[in-house]
Amino acid sequence: MKGFASDNYAAAHPEVLAAIAEANTGHAVAYGADPWTARAQDLLREHFGEQARSFLVFNGTAANVLCLRAMCRPWESVVCAAAAHVNVDEGGAPERIAGVKLHALQTPDGKLTPELVATRLDRAGDEHAVQPRVVTVTQSTEHGTRYSLEELGALASFAHEHDLLLHVDGSRLANAAAALDVPLRAVATDAGADAVSFGGTKNGLLCGEAVILLRPGLADGFAYLRKQTLQLASKGRFLAAQFIALLEGDLWLRSAAHSNAMATQLASAVADVPGVRIVQPVQANAVFAVIAPEATEVLQRDWRFYVWDPTAGEVRWMCSWDTTPEEVDDFAAAIADVCAAAPAPSAR
Amino acid sequence: MKGFASDNYAAAHPEVLAAIAEANTGHAVAYGADPWTARAQDLLREHFGEQARSFLVFNGTAANVLCLRAMCRPWESVVCAAAAHVNVDEGGAPERIAGVKLHALQTPDGKLTPELVATRLDRAGDEHAVQPRVVTVTQSTEHGTRYSLEELGALASFAHEHDLLLHVDGSRLANAAAALDVPLRAVATDAGADAVSFGGTKNGLLCGEAVILLRPGLADGFAYLRKQTLQLASKGRFLAAQFIALLEGDLWLRSAAHSNAMATQLASAVADVPGVRIVQPVQANAVFAVIAPEATEVLQRDWRFYVWDPTAGEVRWMCSWDTTPEEVDDFAAAIADVCAAAPAPSAR
Amino acid sequence: MKGFASDNYAAAHPEVLAAIAEANTGHAVAYGADPWTARAQDLLREHFGEQARSFLVFNGTAANVLCLRAMCRPWESVVCAAAAHVNVDEGGAPERIAGVKLHALQTPDGKLTPELVATRLDRAGDEHAVQPRVVTVTQSTEHGTRYSLEELGALASFAHEHDLLLHVDGSRLANAAAALDVPLRAVATDAGADAVSFGGTKNGLLCGEAVILLRPGLADGFAYLRKQTLQLASKGRFLAAQFIALLEGDLWLRSAAHSNAMATQLASAVADVPGVRIVQPVQANAVFAVIAPEATEVLQRDWRFYVWDPTAGEVRWMCSWDTTPEEVDDFAAAIADVCAAAPAPSAR
Amino acid sequence: MKGFASDNYAAAHPEVLAAIAEANTGHAVAYGADPWTARAQDLLREHFGEQARSFLVFNGTAANVLCLRAMCRPWESVVCAAAAHVNVDEGGAPERIAGVKLHALQTPDGKLTPELVATRLDRAGDEHAVQPRVVTVTQSTEHGTRYSLEELGALASFAHEHDLLLHVDGSRLANAAAALDVPLRAVATDAGADAVSFGGTKNGLLCGEAVILLRPGLADGFAYLRKQTLQLASKGRFLAAQFIALLEGDLWLRSAAHSNAMATQLASAVADVPGVRIVQPVQANAVFAVIAPEATEVLQRDWRFYVWDPTAGEVRWMCSWDTTPEEVDDFAAAIADVCAAAPAPSAR
Repeated sequence: MKGFASDNYAAAHPEVLAAIAEANTGHAVAYGADPWTARAQDLLREHFGEQARSFLVFNGTAANVLCLRAMCRPWESVVCAAAAHVNVDEGGAPERIAGVKLHALQTPDGKLTPELVATRLDRAGDEHAVQPRVVTVTQSTEHGTRYSLEELGALASFAHEHDLLLHVDGSRLANAAAALDVPLRAVATDAGADAVSFGGTKNGLLCGEAVILLRPGLADGFAYLRKQTLQLASKGRFLAAQFIALLEGDLWLRSAAHSNAMATQLASAVADVPGVRIVQPVQANAVFAVIAPEATEVLQRDWRFYVWDPTAGEVRWMCSWDTTPEEVDDFAAAIADVCAAAPAPSAR
Repeated sequence: MKGFASDNYAAAHPEVLAAIAEANTGHAVAYGADPWTARAQDLLREHFGEQARSFLVFNGTAANVLCLRAMCRPWESVVCAAAAHVNVDEGGAPERIAGVKLHALQTPDGKLTPELVATRLDRAGDEHAVQPRVVTVTQSTEHGTRYSLEELGALASFAHEHDLLLHVDGSRLANAAAALDVPLRAVATDAGADAVSFGGTKNGLLCGEAVILLRPGLADGFAYLRKQTLQLASKGRFLAAQFIALLEGDLWLRSAAHSNAMATQLASAVADVPGVRIVQPVQANAVFAVIAPEATEVLQRDWRFYVWDPTAGEVRWMCSWDTTPEEVDDFAAAIADVCAAAPAPSAR
Repeated sequence: MKGFASDNYAAAHPEVLAAIAEANTGHAVAYGADPWTARAQDLLREHFGEQARSFLVFNGTAANVLCLRAMCRPWESVVCAAAAHVNVDEGGAPERIAGVKLHALQTPDGKLTPELVATRLDRAGDEHAVQPRVVTVTQSTEHGTRYSLEELGALASFAHEHDLLLHVDGSRLANAAAALDVPLRAVATDAGADAVSFGGTKNGLLCGEAVILLRPGLADGFAYLRKQTLQLASKGRFLAAQFIALLEGDLWLRSAAHSNAMATQLASAVADVPGVRIVQPVQANAVFAVIAPEATEVLQRDWRFYVWDPTAGEVRWMCSWDTTPEEVDDFAAAIADVCAAAPAPSAR
Repeated sequence: MKGFASDNYAAAHPEVLAAIAEANTGHAVAYGADPWTARAQDLLREHFGEQARSFLVFNGTAANVLCLRAMCRPWESVVCAAAAHVNVDEGGAPERIAGVKLHALQTPDGKLTPELVATRLDRAGDEHAVQPRVVTVTQSTEHGTRYSLEELGALASFAHEHDLLLHVDGSRLANAAAALDVPLRAVATDAGADAVSFGGTKNGLLCGEAVILLRPGLADGFAYLRKQTLQLASKGRFLAAQFIALLEGDLWLRSAAHSNAMATQLASAVADVPGVRIVQPVQANAVFAVIAPEATEVLQRDWRFYVWDPTAGEVRWMCSWDTTPEEVDDFAAAIADVCAAAPAPSAR
């Protein structure tokens, strides 16, 4: 099965699997006190800056929930885009496991702005209301868009001026950095982020994300939080080995840049197809388009992809590290065939 | 580094890694809707019975916490041995994440009995008190002991007669089954367990445990609970492939029987050494002994193992799937050398 | 100090205090096993129907949080108006104490509709998303509006057709019933509600609310939940005596009808004042109006009331059981004086 | 009904009711911004010291849970006596609402010692284990005993030397202070407590307890915590008025000293009765005795009291502010009559 459903439908990158195999020798101290973990932490400091305290965890929902647990006191809350993964795709974990209220704000493109965040700051000091403490942004976003460095920096500045912290859900941070042609630290540390969920799984790992804590103090007690939040791997070397594979050379960048390029190729190929209306800027590894529901039905006979908004006819085509230019060509040709005859629904 | 520190210091079994490599091809539907997961579920039904509903998760703490979340209403509580992993080594997750109170009972050998459980059942119906709902036992136990089939069955009967459920923390269930020379279902389903945390990591997986729900109804909503409890792997095939490797042939049994045999060999070799007092029956893959603190200090220069109770001089020697008879011989010789000259502390 | 700030600025009704004094004699079994509590429960059944299971608690936030705890499993969520007390004025208790996610929907008047609720039902069965289980409405609403019996009935029917439960935050249920000229059960039981937070404090009690559970099964274990949620009064007779005072005669109705009448009188008196724009239907005991900020400033020198929305110039004038017609006349005259010279901001 | 069941079976003291009636006039700002609350806070500072930050709440379970929420980070835990109310009579609220694990230690008399606490401090810094942060003691205890000032001071010193905080569950703090003939601050502030749950209900209030925070910093954010924990009364003046009645004069002391005296009178009267074995020092307002079960059965026909431990034949006779010397005489006579013929069970 191939297709454009999700970057987590892809397998692990062979270099990642090789790193695991290489680490699979003899005994190693459990729970992260092993040389692979130390090396991964070194590499994460190289990429995110000397102040970066990193903790490996199993998945992205856990990375996000852990960051929120570390950043919020019990009466503090989190401002996010309504489309944010943390709001719609984490099964209520932010509320039930981290205990935080989310202020979900409508956005056209999944991106917060200081103006939007400001609308939730009018009850500071009012004991009846939760007190916003964290602004969380997804970079690149769930809509395939990305924040520019200026946009991120403006959010960080606004947050810090208002005694808020900035969290970056970087499940696809590599895609954003690759697309902006900047190092990882530029979209995290240098942009003013206080904590980052740095994704690995969608960029070619078997499983693994890294919590990166950049603000002094946030890491206090975090080891306890990670254990309590069910995220302390006993054979820690296997998470670490994957991050070594990703970060020691340029695998993170190769894979992310490739999947971005595939999305760009796809968008270019279908941009002028009648019946296809691309509805979000293609700024990372996804293409969001509106096509006729009957076209979707026909295309899904042969190709995997998700309907994002059935009422609007919006679909998502996601590329991954293993998407090939030939697949993109084939898929674009299929889209052209099917959609040319079926006008896309008009904008609502 | 080799040694007797823990079965989770061991690497993954090569057959497990091979299974992962084999699964690492092309795209697969994420979040467990893939053929590997279906196959793993089939195998778990073969081993645990047709009624077994299984859910793969990342680690043992998570498996336990998820079982407790599924079994308890908010005012219900859990009876366990004071030595239970759930009580002493899960960072408060049962209380903070599952929200349950644990009634921790002192035991000499880590094993509950109906009589012990009965001491906590005197406040049924009293709204001021939490209401015990789950009895959780570890099989094999944290002390290297195991419940006989009769003991397990008696606990299950007692539990069910008192409207309680039986949970088995089977982080080392394979060791217990191998030692008892029975199939897995004998120490779980047939013994009357309602839910089992079936361990993989300590028996040769990279990472992975399975929650097995045996009582009708317990699985209702469990998929939501797993997601919310941060345990839904996106590339589910890689957890599943490991369980296929473990369960399709006899790998689970080979590895567990081997580590048990190594513990038996070690215990036999040192049983008559002056200065070594074995303090728990060796019924699985661990040897608990009291030796002189100065002997521990000397031995730990060359060998990895844990001091279990420093005040008593108690140490734990744990064997794993990759422990070799030669290592055991070498270690036993070292113990004999060092301990013969240092009398073990007497029993308190 | 008098004024129009809130119905909880008012004192307790003298008949309520007399009932407490009368109950203050000799010993009574603690924790609700006393004759006053039994009598209050009888009265609540008379008012809400034979199936009503009632539990007295200390305040309205607690009543709401307890209802949500009783109605939701861990992965279930709650649909509410964005303006709902449960969303904006409960300090994050629904999320942190009850663990539920709220789906907050924008409304012009604080009132949900089946159409609005329907927008949150598109992810049934999707394990990544919380599953809506409860629709909560406030009757009368935080905007001083009320649901008609038809509107409530339609919401209940819609809810039940979609396997949802209907909760009524009835902090001012008496005002709604009085305004509709129907018995309490008409706006609760007969309208199809499954659970009700029935308010006492805002209708003349010192402190006290009643959780009314109407759906069979919801009361199972509720006594444990109440204790655990910190709401079991030891000297239960004093909560009960207040409800007896409220419900044995017509005090609930007299007080609520009076405060409603005062709001109507105030609205009538200022409706034609230039510079006053009444912005919500006056359907209970509150008047919401837009006046010039400078008028607010002048008026607040002598009168207590809240600015509801400073950016819009919206104020809330709330009447209570002890508001007098003379006070209303005086306040209306002051408003006329001050506002006639200051044009109200135009609608946004 | 009269009797010796509990001090919360007693009515409210008439002076308390008078204070409520006096406060029941006109409007007052809600949620504690009223003059009565300010006055109560002044009085609490007079009694507990200038650094005392006080917050009124509804009941004792809530006061305890709030103190624990304020004192513990998510991975921190609480050391208590196994007999502590927080461990056995709070419906699991410490675990589920505050999220803390309790380390419950067996004691003969409900009193912790530094030695006992020390047994739980061996895993500092171990990420697998919760980290003890609070020592909570009940003064006077659930067994009717009390800590001397030296004992309290030793616990506080030990706690602070080990970076722990001392919490006093002072549901009956007045009884302890009265019995020791010291001011309230002597058993709280001066003894080194960091936080106190100061009880009112059992000492003659209708309902009300005060959280007293003595350590700088603990009050940060506490107003939010109180609201979120469902303990912010809207008509705050009525909680405050009760504390004014209790603390402005010597009502707290008169009532507590009286109930203590009644317990002493009762114990003296029955001490030499054959068939009565007093099993705890009578140091506050309770008498714990072992009598024959058949004596209990006969006595309970006419008198209310609790069986504390049915297997031991242990009963609790609790005195309150309204117990009269005549009642004590009558009850003692009844005990003498009934028990003289029935030998008490021997000690286990």
